Amino acid sequence: MSEPLGIGLIGCGTVGSGVARLLTQESERLATRAGRSLVLRRVAVRDPSKPRAVTLPAEMVTTDIAAVVRDPAIPIVVELVGGTSLARTVVRDALAAGKHVVTANKALLAAHGPEIFAAARQAERTVCFEAAVAGGVPIIRALAESLAANQVTAIQGILNGTSNFILSAMSEKGMSYADALAQAQKLGYAEADPTLDVDGSDAAHKLAILAQIAFGVVAQPAEIERHGIDTIDALDVRYADELGYTVKLLAEAWAAERDSPTPTVALHVAPVLLRKTDMLAQVRGAFNAIQVVGDVVGETLYQGPGAGMMATASSVVADLIDLAVGRAQKTFAVANLWSGGTSRFSVVPSDKVRSRFYLRLLVRDLPGVLADVCQALADQEISISSVIQHEAVEGHPEQVVPLVIMTHTAETARMRDAIATIDRLAAIVTPAVHYSVDD
Amino acid sequence: MSEPLGIGLIGCGTVGSGVARLLTQESERLATRAGRSLVLRRVAVRDPSKPRAVTLPAEMVTTDIAAVVRDPAIPIVVELVGGTSLARTVVRDALAAGKHVVTANKALLAAHGPEIFAAARQAERTVCFEAAVAGGVPIIRALAESLAANQVTAIQGILNGTSNFILSAMSEKGMSYADALAQAQKLGYAEADPTLDVDGSDAAHKLAILAQIAFGVVAQPAEIERHGIDTIDALDVRYADELGYTVKLLAEAWAAERDSPTPTVALHVAPVLLRKTDMLAQVRGAFNAIQVVGDVVGETLYQGPGAGMMATASSVVADLIDLAVGRAQKTFAVANLWSGGTSRFSVVPSDKVRSRFYLRLLVRDLPGVLADVCQALADQEISISSVIQHEAVEGHPEQVVPLVIMTHTAETARMRDAIATIDRLAAIVTPAVHYSVDD
Repeated sequence: MSEPLGIGLIGCGTVGSGVARLLTQESERLATRAGRSLVLRRVAVRDPSKPRAVTLPAEMVTTDIAAVVRDPAIPIVVELVGGTSLARTVVRDALAAGKHVVTANKALLAAHGPEIFAAARQAERTVCFEAAVAGGVPIIRALAESLAANQVTAIQGILNGTSNFILSAMSEKGMSYADALAQAQKLGYAEADPTLDVDGSDAAHKLAILAQIAFGVVAQPAEIERHGIDTIDALDVRYADELGYTVKLLAEAWAAERDSPTPTVALHVAPVLLRKTDMLAQVRGAFNAIQVVGDVVGETLYQGPGAGMMATASSVVADLIDLAVGRAQKTFAVANLWSGGTSRFSVVPSDKVRSRFYLRLLVRDLPGVLADVCQALADQEISISSVIQHEAVEGHPEQVVPLVIMTHTAETARMRDAIATIDRLAAIVTPAVHYSVDD
Repeated sequence: MSEPLGIGLIGCGTVGSGVARLLTQESERLATRAGRSLVLRRVAVRDPSKPRAVTLPAEMVTTDIAAVVRDPAIPIVVELVGGTSLARTVVRDALAAGKHVVTANKALLAAHGPEIFAAARQAERTVCFEAAVAGGVPIIRALAESLAANQVTAIQGILNGTSNFILSAMSEKGMSYADALAQAQKLGYAEADPTLDVDGSDAAHKLAILAQIAFGVVAQPAEIERHGIDTIDALDVRYADELGYTVKLLAEAWAAERDSPTPTVALHVAPVLLRKTDMLAQVRGAFNAIQVVGDVVGETLYQGPGAGMMATASSVVADLIDLAVGRAQKTFAVANLWSGGTSRFSVVPSDKVRSRFYLRLLVRDLPGVLADVCQALADQEISISSVIQHEAVEGHPEQVVPLVIMTHTAETARMRDAIATIDRLAAIVTPAVHYSVDD
């Protein structure tokens, strides 16, 4: 067995406490798996007096990040402070000091991947980040190693457990968005301020990372078309259900023009109607799941807890073991992530993305309305697959009926133009709602 | 980039053709992923004139296995001949000649794992076998690397696509076993002689491999309690459905007495009643899926095509890339598989395994029958959870009614004893049918 491997932990919140607990309480098991002891040497925190889910010797804890990062007995720094400001400094300093880095920070990688990976290559050190996407689900290894014989052609991910919990509650219990969110908060599945979860930002960060590995594209989160679940009406969840679909917040990346000499990849985070028989439609509660299609293997699926103290710690410690064994360094060298200019793919502008659509209108029950709506779609060469006029909805002063239209495949730009026209029709009561449909 | 890596292929049937196709047609992609070229140098086959799904230069093909295994320009031998006789010789000779080995041969590893891995350690060479379990699903890497921080506590796998296809057809279309098998054969999901698939042998081989990685136990396939789907009656599939369950052929390994100083692991391959809401219950058709519970991460699930030319080739080539990158050698060294005597776990005898049971009887509709059946269960201290007496079934000359009993958790030995008593009752028309129930 090789000599012990010293580890410094920066940040000891929920995940950090889980990592510290594993390293201190399962040291024998981890030594067997790693072929050497993994020794937690120092833990840097902002407030040493804060109660934590792990008890650490007082001399291990410090507020001096630099002392941990520069400690010669610490060849690996685990960054778990979160955010993109202090974390960026920690990671840069650790690499500059010749340390390998393990991080669970999706926002940091999504925003500063090129800079961080260039610094790592320059320092000849490795950055590991299994925990940054989908918590305990080993999706990074799946893409980077297990599917290495494949060109990935599509990724569909349920990457935000909070959103999935809320959508599941709306779908299974007929709850409103507000009630489902309140329940998620009560049960600890949503933060007091859930914005980054429910508006799709968190999923977009994760998608940017997956798209880099699978397609080599550097997509800034701001460039990813993004719609959250915070505007979803229980009405649409119910109508989708009646049509045989479940609404899921999906982070998707797929090769749009694969065989072109200049292939493109489409990216979006949005509520999508999935057939109820689809495996991803069955993913309930706070779980994460990712379907990956490879051109050799076909469809594969990876599922598990997307967050939580120990689930995420499981992935962080798997990275530590990979570094101790020496696998991670080899993967890092060949994967050449965020290296710039090496991808065959470019990101297709969101308005060029093609999809089927679910379109739901609330209209005054007047003659000619349906004809006008259909004409607006026809003018954009959008074919209609089905139309359902539902019973009048309650809560509206006048006679208002919901109209649900399923289209055939159409370009997003054309759909938007059609909707702009439809929203100007006199009979339209509220702006049209539309979602992509995956069949 | 390092120098090219020579590969010799022994056996070029379905999977071998897929591997050869990938190596020859996607060489640029694979070189990028592996950091060096993977070069197929020789292919040994029994009959060079046999039509194959890949076109190979005549000078590459030979019938001389030894010439390939001893070729100094070939550091990696891919064994795809199948079976446990010739394959065993090929693997031993390749290791003795100083070659790394990649194999998809589950039967070989299940029967001769200790011998093969000892030979590999002695030769300081690596054996890779991602393709041996669940085809394109990267379950070996998940267990050996991604979940390395965990003690696995349970594995539930749908590991035989043929059986799952047949059960899906029985469940979804109400088909009989014979009709569903005929359809599977027609569509190419079942062999002309489907015995090893439908009697659970194939799944037992795979389970033995997973149990070695997860628990360190060496279970000979013959020691694994094994029931196939070949005796399943459409009646039971229907009754299970009415109770809210789906029948799946599961290969299961779980820590039965985990916190004991001498912990045990239970192993079986059997048709099991799964709640319809369970993710594994949703796995339809020829797919494979494995749920793995880790004591740190919780429940994770891995799904994909369990067989097929390219899906399996995807896993074989992933192993080749891992060897080229140098990851596989490092994993092999620490994993220490089939090394003997290192497991904390022992295999619990099948009659000690505890489970809930579904018990279905066909009884003559006489007074006192139910009392006798309940007494037989009570005598073995088996509690009844529910009883349903169904309508009389057709096709029996006398008045015969099906009786379905769901029990609480009981020891298998006691259940068998109760059934022996029940089967001796005068009112029993056919031997009792029983399956485990996973809630």
